[in-house]
Amino acid sequence: MIIIMGTPGAGKSTVLSEASKDRKQWSIVNYGDLMIEIATAKGYATNRDELRRLEVAKQREVQAAVAERLAGMKGKVVLDTHCSINTPQGYYPGLPYSLLGKLKVDALVLVTAPLEHILGRRKKDTTRVRDAQQNEELAEHMRLNEAMLAAYSVLSGAPVMIVENADGKLDVAVDRLEALLDSFEA
Amino acid sequence: MIIIMGTPGAGKSTVLSEASKDRKQWSIVNYGDLMIEIATAKGYATNRDELRRLEVAKQREVQAAVAERLAGMKGKVVLDTHCSINTPQGYYPGLPYSLLGKLKVDALVLVTAPLEHILGRRKKDTTRVRDAQQNEELAEHMRLNEAMLAAYSVLSGAPVMIVENADGKLDVAVDRLEALLDSFEA
Amino acid sequence: MIIIMGTPGAGKSTVLSEASKDRKQWSIVNYGDLMIEIATAKGYATNRDELRRLEVAKQREVQAAVAERLAGMKGKVVLDTHCSINTPQGYYPGLPYSLLGKLKVDALVLVTAPLEHILGRRKKDTTRVRDAQQNEELAEHMRLNEAMLAAYSVLSGAPVMIVENADGKLDVAVDRLEALLDSFEA
Repeated sequence: MIIIMGTPGAGKSTVLSEASKDRKQWSIVNYGDLMIEIATAKGYATNRDELRRLEVAKQREVQAAVAERLAGMKGKVVLDTHCSINTPQGYYPGLPYSLLGKLKVDALVLVTAPLEHILGRRKKDTTRVRDAQQNEELAEHMRLNEAMLAAYSVLSGAPVMIVENADGKLDVAVDRLEALLDSFEA
Repeated sequence: MIIIMGTPGAGKSTVLSEASKDRKQWSIVNYGDLMIEIATAKGYATNRDELRRLEVAKQREVQAAVAERLAGMKGKVVLDTHCSINTPQGYYPGLPYSLLGKLKVDALVLVTAPLEHILGRRKKDTTRVRDAQQNEELAEHMRLNEAMLAAYSVLSGAPVMIVENADGKLDVAVDRLEALLDSFEA
Repeated sequence: MIIIMGTPGAGKSTVLSEASKDRKQWSIVNYGDLMIEIATAKGYATNRDELRRLEVAKQREVQAAVAERLAGMKGKVVLDTHCSINTPQGYYPGLPYSLLGKLKVDALVLVTAPLEHILGRRKKDTTRVRDAQQNEELAEHMRLNEAMLAAYSVLSGAPVMIVENADGKLDVAVDRLEALLDSFEA
């Protein structure tokens, strides 16, 4: 299993869909979709917004059920998830050890981009004042993402790759991810 | 249990006492005080300075006893501790996994401040030469604090919030911590 | 056991050999040498280059055998290893939890140096264009090293010390490491 993560606005989905095109042997599993599927079944939440506002205990219960499902998956899987999730209570780790410890991870990928590129993609029409605060918040989120990524690597033993998806360089990002997928297809 | 940590000089105690004022349902537990209470009972140390100089094995023994005490606590608790402790042997993690793994943590908070603000609060009368080295040391300490914070989050599954207590913005810091406490009082 | 790590080019070996000179009570164990010794015995690899290209599963098998050997060592040991290893699949953690969890670690040391000093030591004859990319890659590697170091500290409970080996300041770096070794000789 390869786990791919990204800061919102880094373009993870685009990079992943380009790199996984015509790779029928890989199943792409979206963690958020699985969470909603299971949260819906439990009657806790029916969309991402409700899920983000869910209390800690229920988040953990749903995560545990998702972990079990993921641990049972066979074949080549790319798990598409967040490195951390920004909520009113702070940044939740996308791969808490209670989940990560149940998975057999072969590689961890963080799709990122220069901070100004992400800000540019998120909003075109913000005032300079809002930009300054958004800038600091995004920088903080990116630093924590990288630090969590390192912890995921130490706990799982899997290597980490940071794939930069800069404006106008999608091909470079896709090439790096393709090379990684290739290396697990031998 | 909410765990609140801070770099020395970030003003954690002030932010915490302001935010917890008139919140009788929360017990504030200071980790250092508990350490000294237990270290004193064991005859190892009677103040913070002796405690900082204590050898690794004895630090761990005291930490284990503190962990047991904390794990047994009931009700809403704010644990007030260090993210890491700067000693002659290096930075000790304030929440080593041997301790953290025994606790049920709901949120992790790091109180911080811009580097220059912390330096300004620590000393008014240092020479420029000392400032340069202090600056680098503090920057290193702050980077390691953030990286350890991320590891705490991954291991516990608890969200992390970085509360900035900049000069003249105590009210902003207090508001953020109050909102977090509120979110666990429902 | 003290574990000493370093970014390639930081001069870890020089600092370590200077600091451990005339300290007969310490055994210096090189993790890479142990890996090759065991990988050779298993017929997987006979040098560092082959070892770096080894597939994940076999890397883990060799690491497990090395971990067992290290866990059984008696007396004062300095383990000389990498904080993380840069491979085509990403950065592998030098001390994955599967290894770290088996060791009794007293201190973690990262030997580092200012980025430009390391670049200067690595190559004298690169073009400016290559420098820019090398610069970014090295900065990324150094950030991840520090974040992994923090995770090692949290998992093991051992303190971390970052020893800077700047150009012309080898004596400062050696002094810091010597003081650390001294503190465990009492």
